[in-house]
Formats: sequence, structure tokens, C-alpha cells
Amino acid sequence: MAPKRLVCFLAVAAALATTCHGWGAGAGDVVSSSAAALSFVDRLRQMMIPAAVGDGDYCDSWRVGVEANNVRGWTAAPRKCDNYVENYMRGHHYRRDSKVVVDEAAAYAEAAVLSGDPAADANATWVFDVDETALSHVKFYKKHGFGYHRTDEPAFMEWLIAGRASALPNTVTLYKKLLLLGVKIVFLSDRPDTPELRNATATNLIKEGFDCWDELILRSENSTATGSVVEYKSGERKKLEEEKGMVIIGNIGDQWSDLLGSPEGRRTFKLPNPAYYIDNYKRAGAAVRAAVAITASSSSSSS
Amino acid sequence: MAPKRLVCFLAVAAALATTCHGWGAGAGDVVSSSAAALSFVDRLRQMMIPAAVGDGDYCDSWRVGVEANNVRGWTAAPRKCDNYVENYMRGHHYRRDSKVVVDEAAAYAEAAVLSGDPAADANATWVFDVDETALSHVKFYKKHGFGYHRTDEPAFMEWLIAGRASALPNTVTLYKKLLLLGVKIVFLSDRPDTPELRNATATNLIKEGFDCWDELILRSENSTATGSVVEYKSGERKKLEEEKGMVIIGNIGDQWSDLLGSPEGRRTFKLPNPAYYIDNYKRAGAAVRAAVAITASSSSSSS
Repeated sequence: MAPKRLVCFLAVAAALATTCHGWGAGAGDVVSSSAAALSFVDRLRQMMIPAAVGDGDYCDSWRVGVEANNVRGWTAAPRKCDNYVENYMRGHHYRRDSKVVVDEAAAYAEAAVLSGDPAADANATWVFDVDETALSHVKFYKKHGFGYHRTDEPAFMEWLIAGRASALPNTVTLYKKLLLLGVKIVFLSDRPDTPELRNATATNLIKEGFDCWDELILRSENSTATGSVVEYKSGERKKLEEEKGMVIIGNIGDQWSDLLGSPEGRRTFKLPNPAYYIDNYKRAGAAVRAAVAITASSSSSSS
Repeated sequence: MAPKRLVCFLAVAAALATTCHGWGAGAGDVVSSSAAALSFVDRLRQMMIPAAVGDGDYCDSWRVGVEANNVRGWTAAPRKCDNYVENYMRGHHYRRDSKVVVDEAAAYAEAAVLSGDPAADANATWVFDVDETALSHVKFYKKHGFGYHRTDEPAFMEWLIAGRASALPNTVTLYKKLLLLGVKIVFLSDRPDTPELRNATATNLIKEGFDCWDELILRSENSTATGSVVEYKSGERKKLEEEKGMVIIGNIGDQWSDLLGSPEGRRTFKLPNPAYYIDNYKRAGAAVRAAVAITASSSSSSS
């Protein structure tokens, strides 16, 4: 299929310097329908299961503790909150919490750009995390369980390489607004930078409506890859500012390890995620890389 | 009334180096009964008014946005959330959210001290904010409204000087645990350091069960007082570490401006507060000082 570059250029006239990859998404179809509305099953689920059942009150407070970076270092949500977390992520609650974050980010970005802030010039840049920020893996968790440890199983890597994740619809809204404001876009992910996964990530992003960016940074095997997630991501942000002259006016992610570490960006925005926690000091990349190796090995042996 | 120093010393044998001020509180009465349970009116209110009415869903998400430091710079909660905020703070929701934070803090402190962490030696220190962290002003807001701007009216200063604020019961639990662990205690507040307010603050803290501390720091009129809240508080934390050799293992407050700015402390804990926001870059002290001046002037003219 020929690239539909025009689609993107028409939509984002202010962002001509940005590289766009418009194949796979029509002008009126930048957000997949699966992401735009709850499925019938999920709507039914929301009607049948109240937000707080059993330990719902505790789980609700636990989740707020996670969001405010009070509850750290957990490997899975408390067992008694399994149903709560699943209900939260499959339903309206997750979406309305995300909407407040994204509305705040969009209002901030608009004010920053329109205020004549020196940062809001041609180098104004926004950094997006990818997983559970741009792309949602709820479809994967529906099948594998919401307590699934995403970084330690080949099944998750197979899912990533298949590239079937849906856009988080609120994030698409923010992304489009930033493009229209002429803000540069960087996707910065802890996904390992293998050719297969880079291709899958780019294809999935484009298919879901994120079809323009200045940088798509995945975690390479070089020296930065041996550090913590905070070290890796803040190191990459530093390079964006010092080597590429970008001014990071905003940084959005679903993990505090996306947001901490200088330079954080002028404002940070924490999207909700009670399903998993990536430790600030853990080499998450190493576990994912191991899973890639297992997946590659099993793919080659089965082919 | 003679100081009951023995009460405190018996309870906190591990913290002999800490200065204690045990008057006003009996051994079995360190937490005021008004703080320990919801009032009859508030219990009735909780039964009559559901947690989410009208715009409750939006307000719930807005509150989480505040807690995760996404929603910043607000001068009052959204008007449509007035009832939600009042119901939240007068009821169980505020308490259960606070409990998760405090339980996490207590577990962390215990692990840090028992792990043989070099920080957890005789200099291990915990920094508490005062307002809405140690002492609650919900009683004041019940009378003056929950959208009240606390720093811009003499009525709030009169309330502070009267010293009738109640302890936040979850914070007392953490405080007692830290004393038993031998951790030094510092109260660090943006309240202006006038003799009258220092005396009122100390008296109120002691009356509510916070009767031992190593430092009670209020905001002086010197050069640090001209900066932002973050500059003032981080500057004071730096002095604690560099000049007094303290190792700040924990820092707890209800505002992000209590927690940001190096050195933050090894872990920070954000207690909930949807009732007001103290801007990181605002000279909150200046407004409070102005209110002190007005109050002092009106007191002297009426006496």
C-alpha cells in the first residue's frame, strides 16, 4: 500500500518539519474503532459489576496511592484487587481519569505555545511513552489476565510484534492537538531496539493514528541500556535537548519511571495504570530482551 | 499545667535524643477524640449523600489528577466539585486514602531502619509538613466553606492562633511508629515564624499527640522567605542534611510543594488534599504574613 503522506500533511500543516508515515490510516479513521468505544462485553460488564465491590474501597485508595507515587516497587496489584483493576481498565473509570490528565496537558500545551514562551518555538517538543500511554494492551490482558507480568513472558513479546495494540483515545486527542500547535513529537520507549520490534512498533503506532514523529527511540544494546529505566529515559531526554536542541515542554507516561530524572521536561503528566509497575531502578529492558530472545528462538524453531 | 515529659519518654524509649513536650496530653489521650472518629453529623452526611452525585465522576477523576501532580496551579476546586470535595474530606474516603499512604510510609520506614541501611542510623530523620499533614483544618472549613482560600483571610490566621486543629489520625500512627524506631522528627511548615504562631503551632501539635520533635521549622523573615515554597522547604531540608548531619529518609506532606526540590528525602509521601493548592512558585508565606499583620492589628485595636 502506498504511503498516504498527504493525509498527515493536510491535518498538521503547522508541523511540516515532522516526519510523517501516513499509510494504513485514512483521514477519518485515525483512531481504531476498538479504541474509541467500550466493547459490548465491557459495557455489559460495567453495568453488571459495580465499581467498588468487596475490597473496592481499599483498592480504590491503593490505586490513588500508585498514581501519586506513594505505593512503589510492587510486582502485581494486591490479589484482592484483581477484579477491581480489571473492571477499572476495561471500563469508563480508566478513560475518564485519562481524560482529565490529557485535557490538562492539552490546555497547558496550548497556553505554553500561545503565550510566546521562549520554549514554545520551533524546537518545542513533547515526549510520549508508548505502552499504556500511546498504545493500550488491555486486549492482551483480557486474554492473559490483568495481573500478568508483562516483561517476563514471551507471550507479551509475541503480542507486541503482532502490532495489534489499540490507541488510547485520549492520547490521540492530545497528540493531534500538539501536531496542530507545531510541537515536535518524540516517542521514547523501553522496548528493546531490535529490527523486528522497531518495525512492529512503528507500524502499530501509524495504524492507530500516531503517524507523524520526529524521533522514535527504543532501547538499544549500548551502554545506556545497562542502567535503570529512569537513567535510560532521562539520558535520552538529555540527548534530545543537548544534541538536538529540542526543548521538552511536556512529557507524558503511565509510569513514574517515564517522568523522573533530569531533564524531566517542563511539565510531566502521569497517565493512570494500576495493572503493572516498572521499577525506577529495575532493568526492565533486560527482562524484555530475554523474552525477545526466547520468542525469536521459538519462532525460528517452529518455522 | 506541669509538663508530663514522662509520658513521652515512656512511649518512645528509643528516641531519647528527641526533645519532648508532653504537656496537655495524657498517656491514653494522645489523639483527640474529635480526630479519631467521624462526628455524628458527618456519619449521617456519609449515609445521606453518596460519594458521587451529579458531577461526582468528573470530580473523582479531577481529584486523582491533583494527587498525581497533573492538575496544578488551581486556586479553588472546580465549582461543580464543591459538594464532592466537602463530602470527601468530611468522610471515610479521605481517611482511607490517607491510611494507604501512611501504611506504605510506615512499612517503608520499618524496612529502612531494620535493613541496616546506612541512612537508618542515629541521624535518620523524617520531615512532616504541618497543615493538612499533621493537623487538619476540616473543622475550620466546615464553618467557612471548603472552597475557602486559606492564605488570604485573617479568619484562618485567627483559627491557627487559637490552636484548635485536630490531628490527622493516620499521621499520628506514623509519627508514633517513627518515634519507636528511633527516627528523628522534623516539622517543616510554611507558617510564618512569629512568636505567637510558633507558640500556637507547638501547643496545638503537642495537644494532638505530636509531643516530641527535633526541629519545628517555621518560615522566618530572612532571605529564604522571599523564595517559592519549594525553594524555602528544599533549602531547609538541605540545611538539615548539611549543617545538622540529618539523613532524611522520609518526607510527607499534602502538597507537591512540600515534596519537590532537592534534597526531597529518600522517599516522599503525598497525602491527599483536594481542598486547596499551594503553588510551587507562589510566595504563600507573604500572603499569610499579610494576614498575620491584619489579625494582629485588629486584635490590638479590639483589646
